[in-house]
Amino acid sequence: MPLSKDQIVPALITLLGADSVRFEEAEMEGYLAEPRRRFKTSARAVALPRTVAEVQAVMEWAHEVGVHVVPQAGNTGLVGGQVPLYGDEVIVSVSRLGGTRHVDAAAGHMTLNAGTTLEEAHRIAEAAGMLFPLYIASQGSARIGGVLGSNAGGVQVLSYGTARELCLGVEAVLADGSIYNGLGSLRKDNTGYDLKDLFVGSEGTLGIITAATLKLFPKPDHHETALLNVAGPEAALALFTRLRERAGSTLTAFELMPRIGFDFQLKHKMIAQDPTAERSDWYVLAEISVPRGMGDGGLAAMLETAMEAGLVGNGVMAESLAQREAFWTAREQMSEVQSKEGASIKHDVSVPVAAVPELIARGSAAAKAVVPGIRPVPFGHLGDGNIHFNFSVPEGGDNAEFMARDEAVHAAIYKVVLEMGGSISAEHGIGQLKTALLKEVKDPTALKMMRAIKSALDPKGILNPGKMLG
Amino acid sequence: MPLSKDQIVPALITLLGADSVRFEEAEMEGYLAEPRRRFKTSARAVALPRTVAEVQAVMEWAHEVGVHVVPQAGNTGLVGGQVPLYGDEVIVSVSRLGGTRHVDAAAGHMTLNAGTTLEEAHRIAEAAGMLFPLYIASQGSARIGGVLGSNAGGVQVLSYGTARELCLGVEAVLADGSIYNGLGSLRKDNTGYDLKDLFVGSEGTLGIITAATLKLFPKPDHHETALLNVAGPEAALALFTRLRERAGSTLTAFELMPRIGFDFQLKHKMIAQDPTAERSDWYVLAEISVPRGMGDGGLAAMLETAMEAGLVGNGVMAESLAQREAFWTAREQMSEVQSKEGASIKHDVSVPVAAVPELIARGSAAAKAVVPGIRPVPFGHLGDGNIHFNFSVPEGGDNAEFMARDEAVHAAIYKVVLEMGGSISAEHGIGQLKTALLKEVKDPTALKMMRAIKSALDPKGILNPGKMLG
Repeated sequence: MPLSKDQIVPALITLLGADSVRFEEAEMEGYLAEPRRRFKTSARAVALPRTVAEVQAVMEWAHEVGVHVVPQAGNTGLVGGQVPLYGDEVIVSVSRLGGTRHVDAAAGHMTLNAGTTLEEAHRIAEAAGMLFPLYIASQGSARIGGVLGSNAGGVQVLSYGTARELCLGVEAVLADGSIYNGLGSLRKDNTGYDLKDLFVGSEGTLGIITAATLKLFPKPDHHETALLNVAGPEAALALFTRLRERAGSTLTAFELMPRIGFDFQLKHKMIAQDPTAERSDWYVLAEISVPRGMGDGGLAAMLETAMEAGLVGNGVMAESLAQREAFWTAREQMSEVQSKEGASIKHDVSVPVAAVPELIARGSAAAKAVVPGIRPVPFGHLGDGNIHFNFSVPEGGDNAEFMARDEAVHAAIYKVVLEMGGSISAEHGIGQLKTALLKEVKDPTALKMMRAIKSALDPKGILNPGKMLG
Repeated sequence: MPLSKDQIVPALITLLGADSVRFEEAEMEGYLAEPRRRFKTSARAVALPRTVAEVQAVMEWAHEVGVHVVPQAGNTGLVGGQVPLYGDEVIVSVSRLGGTRHVDAAAGHMTLNAGTTLEEAHRIAEAAGMLFPLYIASQGSARIGGVLGSNAGGVQVLSYGTARELCLGVEAVLADGSIYNGLGSLRKDNTGYDLKDLFVGSEGTLGIITAATLKLFPKPDHHETALLNVAGPEAALALFTRLRERAGSTLTAFELMPRIGFDFQLKHKMIAQDPTAERSDWYVLAEISVPRGMGDGGLAAMLETAMEAGLVGNGVMAESLAQREAFWTAREQMSEVQSKEGASIKHDVSVPVAAVPELIARGSAAAKAVVPGIRPVPFGHLGDGNIHFNFSVPEGGDNAEFMARDEAVHAAIYKVVLEMGGSISAEHGIGQLKTALLKEVKDPTALKMMRAIKSALDPKGILNPGKMLG
């Protein structure tokens, strides 16, 4: 029998004080509602510990009495991993675990508490004269605990890696309240299994991350940024290969975008003017980050030869910070603008980099076979093989009718992705949205291993039940 | 009761054929003796499977009958992880699992079987016009399975990462013979726990890696390489910070070396002439890898201002490939030359990057307090905080007498390292050499987690018993 609210709330108040416990529906609302409003269950309570010791106390108690816990940070996840599934859970929010533990610019790392927002992390790095290069659309709200718990990606993974690669170590509270002290700024440490990377991307099922040591990078001298007309995904891929060969790791972003995304933004006045050189079915946003000692990054020269080779039709190089900003704003709004154009069906998928053109061609055809007139808006991180394969309702079509085909479109896209050796969740994770799908598509031995690890580290199944492994 | 040789050998011959089983001491010799000849136990047999199916068959049998298995690849490990501990084990060598499964230069990855040597991996990448940037002294013999099993590092970790970061996925045979199919070339895949990184660095205790997908990088246009006189580790650290700030990720190597290492090599004729500009207590080997589209890497200009700032006393820029080679040869021979100078005591440790000067100062003093006259030869990857903290016997000292102080010197160095938040094994792992030490120094929760994971994935304790976790 799960404990009732009447049993849980007083116990939490005893542990944390009344000020740190929410239990009325209205005051829990902000913790229960997730960005896409797809999952909405209640919870017994929301606990807001202020210290790691308080997180430990809550977990020791929960483990003892058998209360399920949903760890939550910024509540920006897109697959429902951070909100309850059954209604008998307690949400443990790390949002009050803010602040900096340590910043060492010369050594290239900082240790932040898990409640720090990603934007604050950027500012802390900036104040030390350094760069923390992880950029996602929700960075104003997303918090370090969730960024790591979900292994967030973003637009500079190409050169700097995902949250996983940007993290040197974590501190986490386990299901039984014991504390894993894996902080530390070592670049190399071969003393046992890689537990840090087990926590990163585990979506709160193995522990509650309470702090992390993150890498800092030297700030580049300047960026060279171009918005380029390309004939299509094939040409974009060839251009990527060429720029990567010439720019190496200084090529920090390479984003593919379709014309329709710009048209939507113009129509709905999310951008005042078209940032592109001229109309084209497809565009690429390419950026080189030039280290201080190198002078010219060479993008202009590289693009000149790429035009001669027929890979680029036309384009604009950003000539001011404002123009660079305009390019990036148009890119960042590609997903959001779809809601203004009616209903949308979205997929966060990846395939081997060289297979992106085939993915877009086959995926678009497969979706059109399910919903004639469906409008594909595939965009994203071509250099990582990661496409946000989104669709908008047919022009003039009915939203409800379109959304009734939701599952059929998903099935069509995932079928193509899996046939191409791809992933059904490149960035966003599994949460509660994709648990059934994961069971179908994942290597059976991998599933068996994951379940064995979960049972070994959380035998009572206290942490985030029903998420990821179902 | 462990099975006897008479029971094991016929069973293996039935599974693999007589041609794939070694059991006479003489023919097992090459698999039993490890590089430093520190560990030497017999084995029941050596199995040499030619296919993944044969590896599976051996493991299914071993699991069924309860035979312990020691996975082995190139047998170059320095901590005894790849050789038997009890004598009742069967060595399963992946050395015959050679060859390439797939190379895709445009997409930037290759899939190799675990028996491929690192040098062959370099050649395969090279033939595709690409770079696989993992360089260690033993690369002619080290094989991919062991490189990943031990998470090898080397001289370009600064920019490209360790084996872990260079690997996109692995295939592995588990203790019960089931196969984990985690190959694949996805740059982003958030579908469950990061099992790949659990295998990497697990020293054969969780599975036998049979193949891996590895990242390929564009080849740089050229290198800019300098051998620089610096006043000491403090100046070297300041120089590192400065070059990193100016060169960003194009700074691919930054190695610190003491004068004594060059003197040893000259004395023992391992180098014909002194590659340095002039005598100095300390040197730095710094290298920039310049992408094709960038022209000048800017090292000369950076060094000019560094000299003005007093960080560099003198130096030589390599003006030919031969000169670059000479710099690197001197660096690579730093460890090997010590054996010609008498007995040596070695430590592979890391500390936070900014703490390297303090480590060298305190560690040298601590060792001198134990053995007056001991000669420190600390060198290595300053940019990773990873120093090979080696010592040679006092001049004219007795080797046996010196080696009798082995444990005391270790204790003194590890004490300093741990006080500084460092690692007692930066690159080489735990194996059988450091199991007792690991128990003393590792976070207790981490140890508990590791044991739980080991029990969950190998409940019968078949794989590499006694290694890492003891």
